[in-house]
Amino acid sequence: MVNDTPAKIALIGLGAMGMGMAKNILQCGIPLRGYDINADACARFGELGGDARDGAAAAAADVGLLIVMVVDAVQVREVLFATAALSCMRDGGTVMLCSTIAPSETRAIADEVAAAGMQLLDAPVSGGQVGADAGTLSVMASGAESAFAAAADVLKAIANKVHRLGDTPGIGSTYKTVHQLAAGAHLAVTAELMAFGIKAGCDAQKLFDIVSTSAGQSWMFNDRAPRILAGDYAPRSTVDIFVKDLQLVLREGRDLAMPLPLASAAHQMLLAATAMGHGKLDDSAVMKVYESMAGLERD
Amino acid sequence: MVNDTPAKIALIGLGAMGMGMAKNILQCGIPLRGYDINADACARFGELGGDARDGAAAAAADVGLLIVMVVDAVQVREVLFATAALSCMRDGGTVMLCSTIAPSETRAIADEVAAAGMQLLDAPVSGGQVGADAGTLSVMASGAESAFAAAADVLKAIANKVHRLGDTPGIGSTYKTVHQLAAGAHLAVTAELMAFGIKAGCDAQKLFDIVSTSAGQSWMFNDRAPRILAGDYAPRSTVDIFVKDLQLVLREGRDLAMPLPLASAAHQMLLAATAMGHGKLDDSAVMKVYESMAGLERD
Repeated sequence: MVNDTPAKIALIGLGAMGMGMAKNILQCGIPLRGYDINADACARFGELGGDARDGAAAAAADVGLLIVMVVDAVQVREVLFATAALSCMRDGGTVMLCSTIAPSETRAIADEVAAAGMQLLDAPVSGGQVGADAGTLSVMASGAESAFAAAADVLKAIANKVHRLGDTPGIGSTYKTVHQLAAGAHLAVTAELMAFGIKAGCDAQKLFDIVSTSAGQSWMFNDRAPRILAGDYAPRSTVDIFVKDLQLVLREGRDLAMPLPLASAAHQMLLAATAMGHGKLDDSAVMKVYESMAGLERD
Repeated sequence: MVNDTPAKIALIGLGAMGMGMAKNILQCGIPLRGYDINADACARFGELGGDARDGAAAAAADVGLLIVMVVDAVQVREVLFATAALSCMRDGGTVMLCSTIAPSETRAIADEVAAAGMQLLDAPVSGGQVGADAGTLSVMASGAESAFAAAADVLKAIANKVHRLGDTPGIGSTYKTVHQLAAGAHLAVTAELMAFGIKAGCDAQKLFDIVSTSAGQSWMFNDRAPRILAGDYAPRSTVDIFVKDLQLVLREGRDLAMPLPLASAAHQMLLAATAMGHGKLDDSAVMKVYESMAGLERD
């Protein structure tokens, strides 16, 4: 009888991505608990109709599905193990891990989750804040059939494409890590091209109009270059997050003995943005590195 | 009275790009002469209904519009000056220069063209062989109003977007050079990502399906990765041409004192493809560099 009642669901990590996902889950009529270390985020979550709790463990108490959308593996371990959220879940519950972390970390965490009697769905996402807000994320997922089943309603609410990539955790994270190579390199290329064009005397808006509709186009260019044009570096996803993602890419490359010169160059540019004090700005602020290197003065 | 007869038009350079352009010009009912040093290309041009001539000067005799779609500045100078095609044109005629060459070269050639009593339309194109075949190129053009007027019918036949960027030659080439930074970097990223993914155990087709529809997408990825998947490196546009284009990017960067780390890394990878003997293959054969570096064996 107990198992016929819908499993309680909680989401930990209400940043730009997590909040967008929460909004779409709630809009589908699915009750949702939530928690974030940022109290303002918890308050906004409450305004969306969510059931904000005052800690990860409190949010996770007796839930059958725990969605984790924090920044990195350290935070994932903090939520699951240090706060004991995992041990508060219903026996046999599912952790849906949406953070972008190293495949080896995902596998290790999945083993610890399994040892606690739960299962892990490896489910990193792509689509940015825009996709999270619109419920049109792309999910690169792997895990047991039962884990997919437990997350089915939530996946339907947040994504327009769920790639089922295998039956063990780590495979989804591998695809996501490889994918981030392109996203990160294209981010650096976006800033490099815009700075080069401005230095060469191009009109920045005309340059955007041309490149965004020509063979130089990329999803990242079309998404990030308008922020550069506007000089608007209010954070959607930060420089520091992409430094971390490209670090994952390079670490995986090192572990596989796979040289990645473009990803490495992009990582250096993002790292320079952090070094210059822009780590908490939007990742498009890598433009400031190029402006500095190029001696460009902008209003 | 003479000026009321339609100006004769010729196109020099019947490679993949020039042939596609010629096809669309002819399909619009515009008579067209043509020449290429490759006799087979001239024969195909004749089969399309073109008037193939046996030399650049013969093609250019008395024409009002001479379209030049050869590979580089050396070939442009060869056609215009060494073969004397320019001096064979009708007085006051227009040279429509579609090759991707350095802005400084374009300005110098425009000056020599003007000294001969002609005018130059700086009109590099984007869209690749697919765009040339479909008549959907994007043109980054600059030049005098009268030069645009002389080329109007041809532009309409070959392009779905003509960007008018200024009234002097060199501006179009500047935008095109800046644009090529992205196209070239994205080409290298495409191969780097596919090799990384294969090395990490991803299914290459699944990886393509994900990246081509996610935030890692680029025009170049979606266009070139299928060739990598098929292992089909029959040349549409060659490695050597992109080595040349990225060399233009880096030279312009050097002249402007603009560091371009991503473009530089991409150039090195393309140059390695040439060094390995793949210069005449399709530019997607930069994948072979990554396969070699990664120790990947493919069938």
